[in-house]
Amino acid sequence: METPGTLIALLHGPDQTGLVARVAGWIFERGGNILHADQHRDREAGIFFQRIEWEPKGGDASADTAAFYEFAASIGMNARVLSSAQRARVALFVSKADHCFHDVVLRWKEGELRCDLVAVVSNHADLEGIARGYGIPFHHLPVTADTKAAAEAKQVALLKTLDIDLVVLARYMQVLSADFLQAFGKPVINIHHSFLPAFAGGKPYHQAHARGVKLIGATAHYATRDLDEGPIINQDVARVTHRHGVDDLIRKGRDLEKTVLAQAVRWHLEGRVLVYGNKTVVFD
Amino acid sequence: METPGTLIALLHGPDQTGLVARVAGWIFERGGNILHADQHRDREAGIFFQRIEWEPKGGDASADTAAFYEFAASIGMNARVLSSAQRARVALFVSKADHCFHDVVLRWKEGELRCDLVAVVSNHADLEGIARGYGIPFHHLPVTADTKAAAEAKQVALLKTLDIDLVVLARYMQVLSADFLQAFGKPVINIHHSFLPAFAGGKPYHQAHARGVKLIGATAHYATRDLDEGPIINQDVARVTHRHGVDDLIRKGRDLEKTVLAQAVRWHLEGRVLVYGNKTVVFD
Amino acid sequence: METPGTLIALLHGPDQTGLVARVAGWIFERGGNILHADQHRDREAGIFFQRIEWEPKGGDASADTAAFYEFAASIGMNARVLSSAQRARVALFVSKADHCFHDVVLRWKEGELRCDLVAVVSNHADLEGIARGYGIPFHHLPVTADTKAAAEAKQVALLKTLDIDLVVLARYMQVLSADFLQAFGKPVINIHHSFLPAFAGGKPYHQAHARGVKLIGATAHYATRDLDEGPIINQDVARVTHRHGVDDLIRKGRDLEKTVLAQAVRWHLEGRVLVYGNKTVVFD
Amino acid sequence: METPGTLIALLHGPDQTGLVARVAGWIFERGGNILHADQHRDREAGIFFQRIEWEPKGGDASADTAAFYEFAASIGMNARVLSSAQRARVALFVSKADHCFHDVVLRWKEGELRCDLVAVVSNHADLEGIARGYGIPFHHLPVTADTKAAAEAKQVALLKTLDIDLVVLARYMQVLSADFLQAFGKPVINIHHSFLPAFAGGKPYHQAHARGVKLIGATAHYATRDLDEGPIINQDVARVTHRHGVDDLIRKGRDLEKTVLAQAVRWHLEGRVLVYGNKTVVFD
Repeated sequence: METPGTLIALLHGPDQTGLVARVAGWIFERGGNILHADQHRDREAGIFFQRIEWEPKGGDASADTAAFYEFAASIGMNARVLSSAQRARVALFVSKADHCFHDVVLRWKEGELRCDLVAVVSNHADLEGIARGYGIPFHHLPVTADTKAAAEAKQVALLKTLDIDLVVLARYMQVLSADFLQAFGKPVINIHHSFLPAFAGGKPYHQAHARGVKLIGATAHYATRDLDEGPIINQDVARVTHRHGVDDLIRKGRDLEKTVLAQAVRWHLEGRVLVYGNKTVVFD
Repeated sequence: METPGTLIALLHGPDQTGLVARVAGWIFERGGNILHADQHRDREAGIFFQRIEWEPKGGDASADTAAFYEFAASIGMNARVLSSAQRARVALFVSKADHCFHDVVLRWKEGELRCDLVAVVSNHADLEGIARGYGIPFHHLPVTADTKAAAEAKQVALLKTLDIDLVVLARYMQVLSADFLQAFGKPVINIHHSFLPAFAGGKPYHQAHARGVKLIGATAHYATRDLDEGPIINQDVARVTHRHGVDDLIRKGRDLEKTVLAQAVRWHLEGRVLVYGNKTVVFD
Repeated sequence: METPGTLIALLHGPDQTGLVARVAGWIFERGGNILHADQHRDREAGIFFQRIEWEPKGGDASADTAAFYEFAASIGMNARVLSSAQRARVALFVSKADHCFHDVVLRWKEGELRCDLVAVVSNHADLEGIARGYGIPFHHLPVTADTKAAAEAKQVALLKTLDIDLVVLARYMQVLSADFLQAFGKPVINIHHSFLPAFAGGKPYHQAHARGVKLIGATAHYATRDLDEGPIINQDVARVTHRHGVDDLIRKGRDLEKTVLAQAVRWHLEGRVLVYGNKTVVFD
Repeated sequence: METPGTLIALLHGPDQTGLVARVAGWIFERGGNILHADQHRDREAGIFFQRIEWEPKGGDASADTAAFYEFAASIGMNARVLSSAQRARVALFVSKADHCFHDVVLRWKEGELRCDLVAVVSNHADLEGIARGYGIPFHHLPVTADTKAAAEAKQVALLKTLDIDLVVLARYMQVLSADFLQAFGKPVINIHHSFLPAFAGGKPYHQAHARGVKLIGATAHYATRDLDEGPIINQDVARVTHRHGVDDLIRKGRDLEKTVLAQAVRWHLEGRVLVYGNKTVVFD
């Protein structure tokens, strides 16, 4: 799948005639070889979206990167360029539940996630031993209602020190404040254990059981200041029946949470997700 | 699947030791042969549920039916007994959209639905020709905001005249009032074009598109006085992407609506659905 | 989705640097506006595939079509160009089972299938009345073991007379000979009622039941001289249990067959399917 | 879900009138409380199947167990009785691939699998450190073509010494001989990485890719002397496209293999699987 030395550009901006040809032409003229190109038009909103991946001539990724940003601006497009040579630095936020934690770490060790997993951050010490067993530094930053602002400031400072590009909330169970999100300024992916917008808020499996739904779900989304309202990246569901109590929903839900979160993180790391408004374009 | 001359009892009531043995023993002592028995306990609520199907001795269904009601009362159970020799009389309520209408009728003609389809009722005349082509009487009862109460009274009178056991709202698009439901007094199954409780109310595909969900759904439920809040019988979902506009959601949703509604009606007609509180037990 | 007056080109040929840019550049230089472009590289085989849709300048589709074929040849690509203004002429082959027949016709009437349904051809007369009720000419061409070659010759003659572009075998139940396929010379889509390559040949639901599988499937594929071996366009499965007898598999299978076939036909008609070797590229 | 001190009986034998009542009556007369009862009739074969779970009076599981075996024999039924107080002793056979290994162990630690995981057995030493890290004894028993018979003899001796009730082949990659299976004499569950019977034998993902299927699958089954032909317990599939190379199928397949195997083992351990002929009845 992965080709060493490729560039991936994510573009979006006002739609206009000739964008596909101009972007492809620009790469071609510089001697680049386009490997994949995928685009989407939101006709109502008049927005053009593109993901394009190419091998720059002579493998000179940095020159092409800088030049592409300039070119994109010249055609009115917002751009983000990723180099396959650079790996995102990821911090995993966890609490006590360990299923998503193990899942993300094992997929990363298997090579499924194109990143460096540089820190596990938790408000509890429960997973410290396991994290260290995996060889990943563990940071215990307790959070209470009283100390939340201070704890978040410490978290942000840590993320900045570690030069983190992405935070993954692997069932972290704490709501990150708008201040945190703004101060961090980089993407945060959360897994919510329901099929949003159904059962937002706390205890979604209890809500689902009370309502008597026949499917339970999980939703991976970017965290925003509005709880459970951020742009959705991935969702999936599993069938349940009247025989399933809340404990069964929780058990079945763990499998959903793992696969839905892992897929969302994978897409993000491969530069396949573009956010606009409160929605995502996923070039899978 | 279907055995001629069988009885199906649906039971529920306060849980107590020995219920399974007592019900099985009662049937056995009368010379009946149990074909299927399925039970469920809601431990929190302390309720016992059972669906049991048997061949009465000598095929004497009516004597066993009356006796079973008495027996069930003696052990504190609510009971409903269906005879496979009797077919429910069903009325289909439709509006202009015809996909669920064709689907239910064709499945019925194929023999998938154990009922007599005796009437199509609509507030519009659009489907009259097709209904008659299928050989099913069509009743055009226009409804406007002003005439709703009177129109519903006519509908109820028609249903009573026709001795209808079940109304299926096949994308009827009109909300039935609490008065209608009470006056009719028999089950009404509705198909809502979303994964309830997400996107209740009108235009769920528009809501889903606006929110940017990655799955759309459909929900079949019993109609109650609280709109879109009735006991859920069946749900399913289909995957969508940013490429799907509202029109695509509507198109993909039609397939969901058809299969989710048909399965719910089928379960109901086979005596597989027990309602309690605002939930269902489905013995599938 | 559909834009009046667009062209869709399907391309494939030896991979080489610059193809994306050259195709996009060619359209751009002629004043066309690219709406969608999707490509795929088979790296092992060294083949490039593309589906590209554009609005020609001034809506002049025929000039662009001819010129595009020339251009494609000049860059070593095989091309097929469809104009959204032209609708494929489709013949539906049926036998006695009517579920896929109704399903295709109703979707076509709903506007889901971009084609003209100009003929129903059958070896039995059972569906004649219904076809005529739908307003579609019905051709009864009986086939026996002895008369098969002659009957196929009549079928081919009919298809040529009617200028048919696509034959859809909607549970036709007869194997078309290699001679038929060659003489007709246009695509034939078949629905096989199993998850191929499992349970090829006759009575797949019986085979599935005997093997005790937990999922049944359906497969839509292009018919080739090797029975059940043609390029697969679409597949899906449904869950079954020990409770399902062969009759239940047949019933559940009908739903699979309908949706899998309809999706395959839809993709074909929208120019989304490219065949190479014995596989398909589906640009969905 | 799990109730301490319950008994689960799995019964099958020639169908006859009154079986449900007699079994329920027997338990009732001894003062037991039936929690669940599920039965199935194979009408063609004339076989009755039942899973029944009850709380024995005074919690005296061992007396009820012995008496139940006697009772079952008296009504012509084969029986297997499990006590929830006893936990099956499980050995996990692994090779180099670790995804199913981690998955089973982590689910076991989470409490999803009602068993004692007492040994990891492998023909390679790769997973020794991780197994020990999990606190599970690791047994390295190398196997070559020449030493296979001797190695299997050692494996069987080890399993007998450890009093193993179930072997789970978590991508063990070696075929167990008929001699091994007979000498061990207890169930062996295998995970095959295809939707059997499609793509039996080696390299199923390569076969699937070559055939161009649109879904890949995984199948958990009991190992028998006929490779990939044993009774199927569980199957599932995932959608793939032309974009997925063999490596992608392998990656996506890992998720299928994990969940399909874990569910099968879970069902087995909860006494939900009855084998007859070459098929299973799964009371889920």
